Amino acid sequence: MAKVNRNYLKLPGSYLFSMIGERIRTYQKQHPDADIIRLGIGDVTQPIAPEIIRALHHAVDEMGNAETFRGYAPDLGYAFLRSVIAEKDYRDRNCEISEEEIFVSDGAKCDCGNIQEIFSADNRIAVCDPVYPVYVDSNVMAGRTGVYEPEAARFQDVIYLPCTKENGYVPLLPKEVPDLIYLCFPNNPTGAVMKKENLQEWVDYARKHGSVILYDAAYEAYISDPEIPHSIYECEGARECAIEFRSFSKTAGFTGLRLGFTVVPKDLKVEGTALWPLWARRHGTKYNGAPYIIQRAGEAVYSKEGRRQVREQIAYYMENARIIYDGLRSSGYEVSGGVNAPYIWLRTPEGMTSWEFFDVLLEQAGVVGTPGAGFGPGGENHFRLTAFGSRENTVEAVERIRKM
Amino acid sequence: MAKVNRNYLKLPGSYLFSMIGERIRTYQKQHPDADIIRLGIGDVTQPIAPEIIRALHHAVDEMGNAETFRGYAPDLGYAFLRSVIAEKDYRDRNCEISEEEIFVSDGAKCDCGNIQEIFSADNRIAVCDPVYPVYVDSNVMAGRTGVYEPEAARFQDVIYLPCTKENGYVPLLPKEVPDLIYLCFPNNPTGAVMKKENLQEWVDYARKHGSVILYDAAYEAYISDPEIPHSIYECEGARECAIEFRSFSKTAGFTGLRLGFTVVPKDLKVEGTALWPLWARRHGTKYNGAPYIIQRAGEAVYSKEGRRQVREQIAYYMENARIIYDGLRSSGYEVSGGVNAPYIWLRTPEGMTSWEFFDVLLEQAGVVGTPGAGFGPGGENHFRLTAFGSRENTVEAVERIRKM
Repeated sequence: MAKVNRNYLKLPGSYLFSMIGERIRTYQKQHPDADIIRLGIGDVTQPIAPEIIRALHHAVDEMGNAETFRGYAPDLGYAFLRSVIAEKDYRDRNCEISEEEIFVSDGAKCDCGNIQEIFSADNRIAVCDPVYPVYVDSNVMAGRTGVYEPEAARFQDVIYLPCTKENGYVPLLPKEVPDLIYLCFPNNPTGAVMKKENLQEWVDYARKHGSVILYDAAYEAYISDPEIPHSIYECEGARECAIEFRSFSKTAGFTGLRLGFTVVPKDLKVEGTALWPLWARRHGTKYNGAPYIIQRAGEAVYSKEGRRQVREQIAYYMENARIIYDGLRSSGYEVSGGVNAPYIWLRTPEGMTSWEFFDVLLEQAGVVGTPGAGFGPGGENHFRLTAFGSRENTVEAVERIRKM
Repeated sequence: MAKVNRNYLKLPGSYLFSMIGERIRTYQKQHPDADIIRLGIGDVTQPIAPEIIRALHHAVDEMGNAETFRGYAPDLGYAFLRSVIAEKDYRDRNCEISEEEIFVSDGAKCDCGNIQEIFSADNRIAVCDPVYPVYVDSNVMAGRTGVYEPEAARFQDVIYLPCTKENGYVPLLPKEVPDLIYLCFPNNPTGAVMKKENLQEWVDYARKHGSVILYDAAYEAYISDPEIPHSIYECEGARECAIEFRSFSKTAGFTGLRLGFTVVPKDLKVEGTALWPLWARRHGTKYNGAPYIIQRAGEAVYSKEGRRQVREQIAYYMENARIIYDGLRSSGYEVSGGVNAPYIWLRTPEGMTSWEFFDVLLEQAGVVGTPGAGFGPGGENHFRLTAFGSRENTVEAVERIRKM
């Protein structure tokens, strides 16, 4: 008789953004005329840049022609994309990463969720609190955690790294040593960043203890401060202890196109076993490559004109971030993030819980954000707004919040 | 200290098609002028049909326009695609499957590889022998098997269902009851098909024993015989015991576009737990939807003109299958498959092993096929050729083999 994976049953409720979606639907049914502005899920709104659209059309034409048609992609991605990534994202920043160490995929979320598979079930994970839910949930599913404790809103056997106002939302090195450490900077949801010397401390810590850092750099394109590292491989020794995840979703608006990549350095060994062949095997067995036309779109992001266009989009979103940050701050909100990251993190007023603030914001301002508690108990009394709306909506949302 | 998933280390060698690729590269280095015809990996060669190309261009334009741009897709796929699948693939064939039960993905390989996650590690799996390697390998990775026994070329604790000349390459019901049963018909690699009354026996068996059938119907579009079921849901009671995988790869040449779907009926329960919410949770946590433009391409496959065009492609490939089947048969080869499936399965001559025959075929005819042993010990002394080449190459390959 078949048996289910009971670890799945440990997961409380449903995925955060599905819950938010449901609340909005309910509200809309009750208020069919409400003009809702969504600064919640973190989805982009700017259309794909013209240079990328051009590359897509060209690749579509290739697929319609027998001479240029492409079937299965190489397991780990097309060389034209892997080589430009290695060059522009790494070697140009003095990171020693080769084309072979780049694994192209359909997005950082998938890779962040799947990476835990190549580690055994008895690894102990550490995550920031608050945290992007995928890191924890994918480990719950694999049985790498204990049960969920509703009162603490935490899973047993997970090392939570508090990110608080006091530490500037950047975690301190833990006393209890984790085997796998999830770090995401610029951070989702807090918008905090980690300076290079600080990240170097984490790399040194991981090397000393034989831990592996799973570094989510999905938002690196939003960094403007030259002190902030774009890649963990800017730190010495990171090739021996870190895997990095990157995404085209926020960099170039690919949330609906789906493209990302993961870097697994060949020097990275665990118990003497190199991780590169394990991840390659995972790709070869359970994945079939990102679509050719999407990989060509990814290539276009690195062209001179493509770069210029996506940088313009990022500047557009970062101006939104400034508008939200300044607007809320001048209204007396306590805000952080939003400078080298597209997320603005604010403390809810008058000790409101984050879901209470969600409801108030939806009902009084028609604005949707993300309750901090959805990212873990450390997010309670906090709230995330994103810079990914249109300018008009962003300005309007800030106005409405200020009038509340 | 981090620890690797040691189950990965149980996997011998590398993935079959990577091995074949390596042998071809080695041969090409030694014979740079060799004109090699590939009837091995099962990749299509016909370009994407015009109606689908049209839909792709249109969707690309939508992505370039702020009014029509789409970000994150709904977790389980766009309603426009899920509804047309439910209608055309299921309700039109009198299968009671609703739009909600369709989970759109980036391909059947990914879904076949990932589905095992929602079952516990102590389920015992049954697979056909020979078999598509993904079913076994993904379970090895999850620790659902014992070690690999090189002499038997089998993993411990897996129930292998022999598919032999004697049983027409269609497995008999096993005596030892499996928890999870992988079936693929039309079959890869043998090209065998299962009649409806036979599949009904499997459904009855699974219901009686509380087993779940994981039914890979990736090749259903190649069925011409009206006696052969296209879906397991044509069998009574299958909604209570079966998950079905479908692919656009072979149906419409999407190997490089990546689109498939999985059907999880809401009635399917294991130990009283419905599987639909578990798979939905898996999708929501570790996946972010197939690209919008690819889902629009999938929709176009079901349009009147799209259907006509992809049927023409299938007819083209099936004429290739006929050419291979007839050509080899009349040369004295023992062949099967190739009638309701794009694969021709042949016995190697003079008791040659399948890798010996691979080398002979490559060296004497410059033709690449797939050694049966790559699909398990039951594939030894057998060889797979695919109908997915161009007409010219297929005719030439058969001529060369006949002259050997």
